[in-house]
Amino acid sequence: MDNFNYYSPTEFVFGKDRENECGELVRKHGGSNVLIHYGGGSAIRSGLLAAVKNSLDRSGLTYTELGGVQPNPRDTLVYKGIELCKTEGIDFILAVGGGSVIDSSKAIAAGVCYEGDIWDVYCGKAQIQKALPVGTVLTIAASGSEGSSSSVITKEEGMIKRGTHSDHIRPRFSILDPMLTCTLPAYQTACGATDIMAHVFERYFTNTPEVEITDRLCEAVLLTVVKEAPRAIKEPENYDARANIMWAATIAHNDIVGVGRSQDWNSHGIEHELSGLYDIAHGAGLAVVMPAWMQYVYKHNIMRFAQMAVRVFGSEMNFADPEQTALEGIKRFRSFLHEIGMPINFEELGAKKEDIPVLAANMAEKYTTRGFVKLTREDVCKILEIAADAKL
Amino acid sequence: MDNFNYYSPTEFVFGKDRENECGELVRKHGGSNVLIHYGGGSAIRSGLLAAVKNSLDRSGLTYTELGGVQPNPRDTLVYKGIELCKTEGIDFILAVGGGSVIDSSKAIAAGVCYEGDIWDVYCGKAQIQKALPVGTVLTIAASGSEGSSSSVITKEEGMIKRGTHSDHIRPRFSILDPMLTCTLPAYQTACGATDIMAHVFERYFTNTPEVEITDRLCEAVLLTVVKEAPRAIKEPENYDARANIMWAATIAHNDIVGVGRSQDWNSHGIEHELSGLYDIAHGAGLAVVMPAWMQYVYKHNIMRFAQMAVRVFGSEMNFADPEQTALEGIKRFRSFLHEIGMPINFEELGAKKEDIPVLAANMAEKYTTRGFVKLTREDVCKILEIAADAKL
Repeated sequence: MDNFNYYSPTEFVFGKDRENECGELVRKHGGSNVLIHYGGGSAIRSGLLAAVKNSLDRSGLTYTELGGVQPNPRDTLVYKGIELCKTEGIDFILAVGGGSVIDSSKAIAAGVCYEGDIWDVYCGKAQIQKALPVGTVLTIAASGSEGSSSSVITKEEGMIKRGTHSDHIRPRFSILDPMLTCTLPAYQTACGATDIMAHVFERYFTNTPEVEITDRLCEAVLLTVVKEAPRAIKEPENYDARANIMWAATIAHNDIVGVGRSQDWNSHGIEHELSGLYDIAHGAGLAVVMPAWMQYVYKHNIMRFAQMAVRVFGSEMNFADPEQTALEGIKRFRSFLHEIGMPINFEELGAKKEDIPVLAANMAEKYTTRGFVKLTREDVCKILEIAADAKL
Repeated sequence: MDNFNYYSPTEFVFGKDRENECGELVRKHGGSNVLIHYGGGSAIRSGLLAAVKNSLDRSGLTYTELGGVQPNPRDTLVYKGIELCKTEGIDFILAVGGGSVIDSSKAIAAGVCYEGDIWDVYCGKAQIQKALPVGTVLTIAASGSEGSSSSVITKEEGMIKRGTHSDHIRPRFSILDPMLTCTLPAYQTACGATDIMAHVFERYFTNTPEVEITDRLCEAVLLTVVKEAPRAIKEPENYDARANIMWAATIAHNDIVGVGRSQDWNSHGIEHELSGLYDIAHGAGLAVVMPAWMQYVYKHNIMRFAQMAVRVFGSEMNFADPEQTALEGIKRFRSFLHEIGMPINFEELGAKKEDIPVLAANMAEKYTTRGFVKLTREDVCKILEIAADAKL
């Protein structure tokens, strides 16, 4: 096991109706003048925004609203948010939404405290040194951004998607009410489930030996999603299925399952190009990329893929020919994604094979220099070719 | 799943030689004048105390030392520590040792800030409202106190063992260097492993339905201990076995595997009387009590015990007669404890059957009113009778 630091100071407030506590939580964590940041009309229509404002009112807090966050949140709205915070003297940002809203909030929080262009920290030119405190009221189980130090935004000019991370942008608190996810359409639920599994797999495929505890914790999250995601899709209002998925999503990405081991993240790197270029859902992109990545790299460590097959997807171990078990696991993963309604190839995703060279060329430098298997841009092209034509 | 709050703000600093960073960590977390609290001579002989003091020196911190913490840490030393902190103007307590040292440190930290007798908070008359900050350098993987809000101390007069918990006494940082555990004798390693498993089982046996994520996380920790503890006992200097156990111990008790579900803790309640009366190791007491408790209550939820048997101890499910699987799991747990060198009955533990009525009568009130199965004092006697005569 490798040396590591683990620090996850976010206060998680989980369960039915907990959004009504957001006012006191903002106050507890030092806020008085709040920016409520959210996405589209669903937060308004569902009554969530009204509940949040009522709670802030009850706690005697002032607030300003900024809606309009899109999936693959744009730098343009981030800049607008930064200006608004400065004008209004905002001291706390409350994200009401999913990963896009939270990531946009984190970018604004850091941007208010940064002298230059906040895109600098996303393209690797600078590091976040300070940020306004952020709290979240989560509406979709997927990104894990509610408990992570990460933020990913998209530069509208050229649709370039880049991520950063810093303990300064970890949410101070996150309210997780599974009820808020019960109205999600099946497709979004499935995209979320795929994202959760991908966050775990990026950690599971490691070159660090002797990591039994985190292997087992990774498998715990994966087994939960494999059980609960189909149930949430079939019975959208099943509170317990939603609750299990919601906590799994947080655990999957606050690094409790990934400490002390090298991680991969190349599937995320490749997917960011897809969702950047086509403005598609991140989970859908991952469903197409990740099994293809697995097919391309599995020979690097056949027994690790066999372990996934046996422990996560219930395959029987083929002791005479472990490679068959490894391949069976990848096949079962793709079948699972198909069953929950995810695309599994370019056609289903709405991507084009002729864009592959551009996608590979654009991929951020950092992804090609690390990971389970180091990838050249030629490797990325080959993975995308497998992804393009994938079948069950 | 039940509503819950989860808050674990401790900074964990894990790996080889990390104890050399304790000075800068104390400074980062606001300390300047430190009480170094430790146990017996092993911290001196091993050179650990010297390394800690060197690190504090390098960071320009002043310090006072207080050694002499015994297993089942006594209130008498806690009172001494409180006075010392007041006299010396201590603003940070650094625990260098295992669970006993950390629990004693937490008691001192709270005691310095409490007007009355700190025993009040242990016997339930008061709650902790404030405490000095505590940091730890852990030397044994067992109690989980390095990441928990709990503290258990023993009143010397009458040897009464009682616990309390509060977020105010959660360590600000904990340094976990698995190397420091490589010199532990096999018996202490086994006691630690038993304690870890017990912390998980107290959470695993729940009456809350639909807790797949925490069930799977519990099983992840248990599977790790079942694999790694025998290896650490056979090869004491196996760093990776020690590392996996050390992180498992922390995860087992910072509540990440126990949120959103009712918990039990009656085996701990019963065991506190045993280790209080006989001044024996907590883990050894748990090895005798917990399988007996399982035998006494398993009919309350046969399928949960069958799940433990299959998922943790690799039993085959007896679909025609699940009770046999449940019993097989309990049997395998006791065999495992025996194999790692733990006592499994009163004779091996050094306890006396004639003390059973006193042990049951002394048990803290709170344990008999809650849990997986509510227990009367008569039930406790029956569990202790099973424990007294247990065989493989």
